Amino acid sequence: MPGAHRAAGLHRPHPSSPEEPPAQEDLLLAAAYVSDAQYNRNVPFETSPQAVRLYHFYNHWTMRAATYFFIWGDLALALFEEPALFPLPFLATSIAEVLCLTAFSGRLVHFAKVTPQMVFWKDTKNICIVVTIVLTLIDLITYGSLEAVNIHGVRWSRALRPVFLINFPESRQIRRAFRSIRNTLPDILYVFLLFIFSMLVFSLMALKLFGDRGLKTVEGSPYFTNILDIAFELYVLVTTANSPDVMMPAYEFNWWYSLYFITYIIINTYIFMSVFLAVVYNNYRKHLKNEIRTLAYLKRHKMIEAFNILKVKVGTEFVVKEAQWRQLAKIVAPDISSSHLELLLRISDEGQKGYVDKMNFLRLADLLNIQVVTINIKRHPLEAWMPRVYQSSPSLLVQKTVRHRIFVWVYDVIILINAIFIALDEKNPLISYAEWLFLSLYIIEILLKLYTYEPRAYFGRKQFWNWFDMLIIIAALVATVANSTIQSARKYNSQQILDIVLILRILRLLRIIVSVQRFRVIVTTLINIGPTMLTFGGLVLVVYYVFAIVGMEVFHGKVHFFEPSSTSPDALVCGNPALKDSAFARSRYCRNNFNDLAASLILLTELTVVNQWHVLADGFALVTHQASKLYFIGFHVVVVILIVNIFIAFILEAFFVAYSLEKSEVETAIEKKIQELGVGVQEEEVQDGKLIDNVDAKDSGFSGDDGDNKRRALKGLYFRIASKRYKTVDALLQQMFESEIAPEDEGPSLEEILNFSPSDVHPKNPSFENSA
Amino acid sequence: MPGAHRAAGLHRPHPSSPEEPPAQEDLLLAAAYVSDAQYNRNVPFETSPQAVRLYHFYNHWTMRAATYFFIWGDLALALFEEPALFPLPFLATSIAEVLCLTAFSGRLVHFAKVTPQMVFWKDTKNICIVVTIVLTLIDLITYGSLEAVNIHGVRWSRALRPVFLINFPESRQIRRAFRSIRNTLPDILYVFLLFIFSMLVFSLMALKLFGDRGLKTVEGSPYFTNILDIAFELYVLVTTANSPDVMMPAYEFNWWYSLYFITYIIINTYIFMSVFLAVVYNNYRKHLKNEIRTLAYLKRHKMIEAFNILKVKVGTEFVVKEAQWRQLAKIVAPDISSSHLELLLRISDEGQKGYVDKMNFLRLADLLNIQVVTINIKRHPLEAWMPRVYQSSPSLLVQKTVRHRIFVWVYDVIILINAIFIALDEKNPLISYAEWLFLSLYIIEILLKLYTYEPRAYFGRKQFWNWFDMLIIIAALVATVANSTIQSARKYNSQQILDIVLILRILRLLRIIVSVQRFRVIVTTLINIGPTMLTFGGLVLVVYYVFAIVGMEVFHGKVHFFEPSSTSPDALVCGNPALKDSAFARSRYCRNNFNDLAASLILLTELTVVNQWHVLADGFALVTHQASKLYFIGFHVVVVILIVNIFIAFILEAFFVAYSLEKSEVETAIEKKIQELGVGVQEEEVQDGKLIDNVDAKDSGFSGDDGDNKRRALKGLYFRIASKRYKTVDALLQQMFESEIAPEDEGPSLEEILNFSPSDVHPKNPSFENSA
Repeated sequence: MPGAHRAAGLHRPHPSSPEEPPAQEDLLLAAAYVSDAQYNRNVPFETSPQAVRLYHFYNHWTMRAATYFFIWGDLALALFEEPALFPLPFLATSIAEVLCLTAFSGRLVHFAKVTPQMVFWKDTKNICIVVTIVLTLIDLITYGSLEAVNIHGVRWSRALRPVFLINFPESRQIRRAFRSIRNTLPDILYVFLLFIFSMLVFSLMALKLFGDRGLKTVEGSPYFTNILDIAFELYVLVTTANSPDVMMPAYEFNWWYSLYFITYIIINTYIFMSVFLAVVYNNYRKHLKNEIRTLAYLKRHKMIEAFNILKVKVGTEFVVKEAQWRQLAKIVAPDISSSHLELLLRISDEGQKGYVDKMNFLRLADLLNIQVVTINIKRHPLEAWMPRVYQSSPSLLVQKTVRHRIFVWVYDVIILINAIFIALDEKNPLISYAEWLFLSLYIIEILLKLYTYEPRAYFGRKQFWNWFDMLIIIAALVATVANSTIQSARKYNSQQILDIVLILRILRLLRIIVSVQRFRVIVTTLINIGPTMLTFGGLVLVVYYVFAIVGMEVFHGKVHFFEPSSTSPDALVCGNPALKDSAFARSRYCRNNFNDLAASLILLTELTVVNQWHVLADGFALVTHQASKLYFIGFHVVVVILIVNIFIAFILEAFFVAYSLEKSEVETAIEKKIQELGVGVQEEEVQDGKLIDNVDAKDSGFSGDDGDNKRRALKGLYFRIASKRYKTVDALLQQMFESEIAPEDEGPSLEEILNFSPSDVHPKNPSFENSA
Repeated sequence: MPGAHRAAGLHRPHPSSPEEPPAQEDLLLAAAYVSDAQYNRNVPFETSPQAVRLYHFYNHWTMRAATYFFIWGDLALALFEEPALFPLPFLATSIAEVLCLTAFSGRLVHFAKVTPQMVFWKDTKNICIVVTIVLTLIDLITYGSLEAVNIHGVRWSRALRPVFLINFPESRQIRRAFRSIRNTLPDILYVFLLFIFSMLVFSLMALKLFGDRGLKTVEGSPYFTNILDIAFELYVLVTTANSPDVMMPAYEFNWWYSLYFITYIIINTYIFMSVFLAVVYNNYRKHLKNEIRTLAYLKRHKMIEAFNILKVKVGTEFVVKEAQWRQLAKIVAPDISSSHLELLLRISDEGQKGYVDKMNFLRLADLLNIQVVTINIKRHPLEAWMPRVYQSSPSLLVQKTVRHRIFVWVYDVIILINAIFIALDEKNPLISYAEWLFLSLYIIEILLKLYTYEPRAYFGRKQFWNWFDMLIIIAALVATVANSTIQSARKYNSQQILDIVLILRILRLLRIIVSVQRFRVIVTTLINIGPTMLTFGGLVLVVYYVFAIVGMEVFHGKVHFFEPSSTSPDALVCGNPALKDSAFARSRYCRNNFNDLAASLILLTELTVVNQWHVLADGFALVTHQASKLYFIGFHVVVVILIVNIFIAFILEAFFVAYSLEKSEVETAIEKKIQELGVGVQEEEVQDGKLIDNVDAKDSGFSGDDGDNKRRALKGLYFRIASKRYKTVDALLQQMFESEIAPEDEGPSLEEILNFSPSDVHPKNPSFENSA
């Protein structure tokens, strides 16, 4: 990977002379760099005009969407293959799989055309994809031919499918999470070994202390007589899943023996598990910082490359001409409105000199990342349509009422009453009529608000709660009407629709959160964390998928679920006599099986929650072999010890960053500039509805664009400086870091950037503040 | 509290003139300040000579030990009072309690004599103690009189006993942990309310979705039909204790319903519980920094007070004369050896000018805190005793062998073989003989080491593993011999002794940890955290004690434990018919009851581990009233949500501090000075045994003290600069903070120090390093 940009810089076909305007090819190349900087893409690409064009196409959203479509389609095949939730013949699924593989190959060939060949074959990601495609084809062919002669093979290549999700360049976040895990492994390994050692010492002690006592468990089996069983029980005790049952026989024998278990729990459950979290969290922080520093410098690097392509000499300094700058911005962001572009130019070319200097040019990627919304400074459509009526005193009174706080409170009370009605029995006809009343009240509320506030502002982007309200109410209305229609027509309640109506009705209660400011803050932080949590979703999905495929191969069909109404004697042992008298059958866990993908994933979720996992593990060990417990222990180590801890580390870090921002707003130079120009709008103002009123009042005399006066021309458009509260931890950290790089700093060389090690980030002498 | 020191400064009886040497009273007063600075005590005291003398007596270790003795005695009374583990008549326990109360009153009166009266009555701690003493007396009298007329009262004041543990000035650490919790409460409250709200919304949804389906639980009772039951089940699900059982009926009915539970678990178990940890951790960090800053400034303040008392003018500057300095140090540290004192003076009075200037004087408290050990620079006693034999070539060969790495490895292998033998059946006589062999091998190892290394160095302070080895082996030897004697004499094995022998035999295996360097590091960190973990022990004990006393009053005698051999039909329902068919009785949890203090504490530990807590709660609700579940929920909120999270926060912080120290050793000025003088010894060198050899070789010609040459005189004594690895988080943070205060900085005024708020600590513009 290193050297690619460098090579690009050397072999560039048009080393544009200072005077001559850059060709279209150069603009495209520069746009590729700027776009990569904007989206933090780090793909080395060839700089020939042909390759650059292909690269633009490679990054086009349709191509990326198609790739994701095929990845998800490939993963979803497990739903249709034996053991299937919705069975399809092998021919159908194998054709679909070949189709997906073709798409992946196409994407890869496209990528190979874009990137320098040497780089392509050095990248493990590409090799992984190629190998996986080949292996999958081999597996398909062998399985197909075996099937043809009626030998049942194992479709082992299905476990490799997540490789595609991980290894396409789009899944940077998931790869990073995996890297986090890999980096943590060496550190955690020694703690884990020590923990295992401590567990074995305790096992030995348990064997000697309790083995010869002739104690019995509640089930009547001998207690602590086999060292392997003891080790497993003690491992389960670390997860707390068999506490206090595992202790009871010893405790009943002599209460002093409970001290043995308490000591064990303190050391292994509390201390060791906390140490695992500490190690994971520490590594997460360390590598997060390093990656963000790398990203920030790479971005700077790409912007410099772009600048070097477009620069012309004016006076003593190199600059980019306004015309080129406009063309570039148009290529990078084709959907940009002209007034938006005007504003960006205004910020970049402060003195209106007709060109953008280097320092301002480097900010382009950040400028494009700032979200822009049109704030309502136009009149309400009704006002424009029938001004007399809208401005009449009853109309104004309505508007004033709706804007008043009491209006909000009244609706909060209505929601609470509604909650009580929901809790009551709905078979009572009075209550079912009341439901219609509440629904109408909510609809009236929305209509009133739309009458008062400008609709486009009310449904602006990020007006989360307004959208939420509206969607819930409309959905409830549709579902209720649909249900009534069906009911009156056929005297029959559709179960699904009723369920949906119920859930929607209750979700409406969430509205109350908006009224409590502290609740809103917490929820906003959580929503903010949302996107990165999806990364974890991806990570978890990959691990779950692999374990599910393996589980289905190993445990498929060993346990059967019988409908609760079934009277078959097999129902009591889940169709497998080996489960007779087991805790698994006694707890009626038959539905927890590996008989299709959905059931497997639900079972794995239960294992993630940990409780009763030993019962599940024991059950599947009984129907197969004791060694299959290793599958469950492996799942616990990977998911609970590693992934859940990384998840916790991530939430902790997100909260701390949010907290330190509360204390001191970090503003980058760009945001300051926007504020200076007076075109910035803080999220908070919009949320509270203050802005809408202010702007309405202030700009009531406003009338259309005015070409000359830029300050006025921009009035129709306000920059929304994305509130810090809405940013991801990554974006915030990157911003904080960038605001510390001097604008002139060109950063270290590309090789240095790519070889940053996490330990460099730490200062030699940490001050009190950052160590404590 | 503020103003006390200030007043002292103003009303001091002898504002010693620059020339006149300070009186004995002044020395005592200064010593009180220095001693307070050394131990971070923050007790305002009167400065009259009488009060200062009383204050020294107040701080004497015997007085403090006596106070702790009575506190623990008072707490331990619960073991002897009804419901008692070891019953004693009410008269005996009440006399003991009155005795304790008298001791507390005495201690308090002593404190009142020392501290200014106004300060005394303003301090909530003192008022708490007085009120508790009075309430306890009232309770004792009413209970006693009721008992006299055979009415059984409630001894409610027993729950107040931990007040004494918390409120005496000695328990600063526990109070701080409580303060941590109190500070966290407002922040956590809103998260908790939102969490409860989310739980209620989900409960409502569950009622509507599952209530009318006629589903049954595994036990056959109706499933999700009562909103209160649902809320409890969902609260239990947050703790994961009833997963996946609570989901199974709905899941069996329709697999889509599992999504409801998965959503619930993701939101409430994973996200909310992580947010709780984040909030607690954030507050912990914030307040930790603030408290440490306050401590550091208070220490500086006290040292300045001490200096001002003793200062005399020499030339243009105020200094403390060497004679006074010596006297002072002798009062503060009566056990100090003269060579140790000499070294401190040498460091404080670098130029040997006969006086100590202000800057150096301020360091006295820190100097006294540095641990000093005598390193072996004398010859091995055997060498002195019979040099010819000890230096003979066979003897030298033995020494060389013992020092060799292979010697360690051989013993590691022996330990492993021993482990295998232990795991095998010990009834085989061959194996029981092998045990004697192993024991002799270990004894030979220790003897060889004592022959090779100088015994006083080998058993130096902090030579943890050597002590560990020795004690385990000697104990095992004594126990084994005792057991054999008993066995051969009476043909009878003492169960207790056998258990102890077994445990000791297995603990010997821990020795192997020393041989793996990475294990040693982890264990050292954990041992280092130990002292502060005891603080948590205190905190947990207080909470457990209160809950245990309340639990004993409410649930005492409701559940009975029958010996496993009992054939009584009551044994199956724990002696209470209300438990018929309950999960509590089915799991044989009868031993988990509140019938004495030990059983209560073990039960509370089980509740802390969380698993199956709902079964216990249900059981006790059945034998009393459903409302008693609130007791268990309250315990969960206090212990698991608050205390366990603070514990995790503490471990995380301790590891991060340890980690940042690995990166950059923080050395204070004093430690640098000691290093410069060449009398410092790093812990690591001693541990590896390198030093012992080096010093042996270097100083073989050494012979006794030499008064004039101080550098030589000090050779017999080396300062052990307590390795950072052995310090507590607090001490490390304080040291780091102090190394940032300029030596001349006198810090803010006392009032300012005492009113520091945590938000001050945060810089206005955090840099990338400390925010990330």
